Amino acid sequence: MSLPQPRRETRLDRYHDLYAERTKGLKASAVRSLFAVANRPEVVSLAGGMPNIASLPLDPLADMIAEMVRQHGPQVLQYSGAQGEERLREQICQVMALEQIDGNPDDVVLSCGSQQALDLITRTFIEPGDVILAEGPSYVGALNTFQAYQADVVHVAIDEYGLIPDALRQAALSCRAAGRRVKFCYTIPNFSNPTGATQSVSRRHELLAVAKEVDLLFIEDNPYGLLSLDHDPLPALRSFESERVIYLGSFSKTFSPGLRVGWALAPLAVKEKLILAQEAATLCPPVFSQFVVSEYLANWDWQGQIKTFRQLYRARRQALLAGLAEHMPPGLTWTKPGGGFFVWLTLPEGLDSQAMLPQALTHRVAFVPGTGFYADGLGARNMRLSFCFPSPEDILEGTRRLGEVITEALDLAQTFGLTHALPKESL
Amino acid sequence: MSLPQPRRETRLDRYHDLYAERTKGLKASAVRSLFAVANRPEVVSLAGGMPNIASLPLDPLADMIAEMVRQHGPQVLQYSGAQGEERLREQICQVMALEQIDGNPDDVVLSCGSQQALDLITRTFIEPGDVILAEGPSYVGALNTFQAYQADVVHVAIDEYGLIPDALRQAALSCRAAGRRVKFCYTIPNFSNPTGATQSVSRRHELLAVAKEVDLLFIEDNPYGLLSLDHDPLPALRSFESERVIYLGSFSKTFSPGLRVGWALAPLAVKEKLILAQEAATLCPPVFSQFVVSEYLANWDWQGQIKTFRQLYRARRQALLAGLAEHMPPGLTWTKPGGGFFVWLTLPEGLDSQAMLPQALTHRVAFVPGTGFYADGLGARNMRLSFCFPSPEDILEGTRRLGEVITEALDLAQTFGLTHALPKESL
Repeated sequence: MSLPQPRRETRLDRYHDLYAERTKGLKASAVRSLFAVANRPEVVSLAGGMPNIASLPLDPLADMIAEMVRQHGPQVLQYSGAQGEERLREQICQVMALEQIDGNPDDVVLSCGSQQALDLITRTFIEPGDVILAEGPSYVGALNTFQAYQADVVHVAIDEYGLIPDALRQAALSCRAAGRRVKFCYTIPNFSNPTGATQSVSRRHELLAVAKEVDLLFIEDNPYGLLSLDHDPLPALRSFESERVIYLGSFSKTFSPGLRVGWALAPLAVKEKLILAQEAATLCPPVFSQFVVSEYLANWDWQGQIKTFRQLYRARRQALLAGLAEHMPPGLTWTKPGGGFFVWLTLPEGLDSQAMLPQALTHRVAFVPGTGFYADGLGARNMRLSFCFPSPEDILEGTRRLGEVITEALDLAQTFGLTHALPKESL
Repeated sequence: MSLPQPRRETRLDRYHDLYAERTKGLKASAVRSLFAVANRPEVVSLAGGMPNIASLPLDPLADMIAEMVRQHGPQVLQYSGAQGEERLREQICQVMALEQIDGNPDDVVLSCGSQQALDLITRTFIEPGDVILAEGPSYVGALNTFQAYQADVVHVAIDEYGLIPDALRQAALSCRAAGRRVKFCYTIPNFSNPTGATQSVSRRHELLAVAKEVDLLFIEDNPYGLLSLDHDPLPALRSFESERVIYLGSFSKTFSPGLRVGWALAPLAVKEKLILAQEAATLCPPVFSQFVVSEYLANWDWQGQIKTFRQLYRARRQALLAGLAEHMPPGLTWTKPGGGFFVWLTLPEGLDSQAMLPQALTHRVAFVPGTGFYADGLGARNMRLSFCFPSPEDILEGTRRLGEVITEALDLAQTFGLTHALPKESL
């Protein structure tokens, strides 16, 4: 750095020369930058992924937490270990057992939301330039994390049952043949964000067979598994394979996101590294929050609460799908998820969801353009619509408004010709 | 990666080839790996840095939190923004004003403890091989974080008033002359961990003048500033200089560590990058915890509580210093801090605190060997002793036991000659 310059700064950011390379690609999450506008009360937001938590038992919860503070204040308000509270790790194993996972509390590592567990895993495995395989499209929050570590995300084709096994094999082998290091495949097997696709049980076995064949590690991210709306939860990838799958779980959608309590279930050697990484990142994840979750799991019918959530989300899913059927012009397709929060809509050729967003906001409806869910520029013809938060009535009204917006855009495109080059085929 | 191998694993860790370079240097914090042993009830632990929170007003706090959940449950249990809650950022500016900092709530970024703020800052600035200047010795948790990003820590000599300005200038210039990139200087100006040294006001001005002269950025980490035991808190570095100082604050020592609420106060351009980094790391820091801190600050005499903490820590400091004066054999020196939690003890030549630790634990007293607080192998003759947690009576007993251990070690060294090569001069 040069000797002192005159006080007047000629560049806007005096730290410009100091930043690490990894910050160059940091971009605001397309999802979150919408929030300021989309959260205005007159807007029907089909953009957010906020769980509908108004039905949580607030009075019993308040009493529970108050008692916890009175009886155990010096412990629940104190520093604790980086791996997380032992009792909660045991309870988490019981939660995971609902999806047939046979895990050991010693192999559970708590984190500040499962997002932070993914951050620690990425930190543990990824060098700049390493390849991460992921569904195409994939969860924008994960893509942001991978980009923060300068990974190269290679998307793998999916169908209605998620990752296509041949495509996965092909992607892994061709990357390696080109001399690139494939570190893991990131997947959301249940009600994937953003497509809602769910891997069938037979598909899970096929994918694990591919992973064994090409020696690939899976990161199984499963925030929505228990929010299955039509049938019982399916067995997790991790239930069939323990050494080749690192499992991420979360209480954000089954209890409360604001507590920031998630976890990784990892084989011993990886777990040890995650704990060290957690020490360096935070010293320990939120202790008070962990005890709140423990108390809730121990003292409340939390599985009954999940049933309540399922009912709420079932009604909302119904509203969204019915509204789309009623209000969308011809030429659109959309997924019909068996759970989770999201529907993935595909526009006719010539339309661009990102370009449509300002008009949508003027019509007081919000969605997330599809491009945020791809690392490689695809997704211009897609929108992610969420049904988790607004009321069924608002959702219906939202689809009406959205129908107007899309119809207008179609009319414009047909009247004035295509305003964009034909985007590549996207799901 | 090669084609499938026979099932029998020949190496213990099958992921060995997958880990990122940055994990190679990860080592368990010397402080934390002690905890399992040091926390046994029969051991007097002078090793931990756990704040003494038994005096917190648990009943009023329980009531406050319960009311918060009842009235605002859907908000305090929900996702929120990565920057943190606005009301808390305003309150934080009032807290910082006690140390003369004139900050803007817009420039505050919340984090999962100030440790996580330091992690985000390191992530924002540090490439592998970049130089970070730090006090010698410096806080082990920070050294772990810097190492996790493969930084080179260069220690700068200190005296009883902390960083020596000439040494700082010299370190910055000589690193640069050698073609190395010096990204920032990490400093704990108040009651530093581990030495307890505090920068006088005139020293602060001198250091800032050096920073301006050599164009250096400070990371000012200030968890203990309000725990000044003998006089009012001193004005922070950040109170004199806003563009060249990024300030880290925490509620861990003034309220509760288990909530994991800390923050960075950073200039605009840096703040924007920290928010993006937080999105990728966690989506958002713990929301529930932030509201708990807000309620506490708004509804309780939190400054009165800090007065209570000061009284507790004053008594414990007194016990430790009196105990050391009474029980230490000749040839030892130790610091006499004006606040914070720690005393830094220097053993006579020929003794090694790390080698002494097993014997200490047998004598049922724990301390932290000094080597953890240096990136470069120094510190073998030092111990960090904490006075924050045990009772004054236990602290006195602890110094008695420690005195026995050191006396025995001295006798051995004198009887059998030096068992170790003379360590370099350390403070």
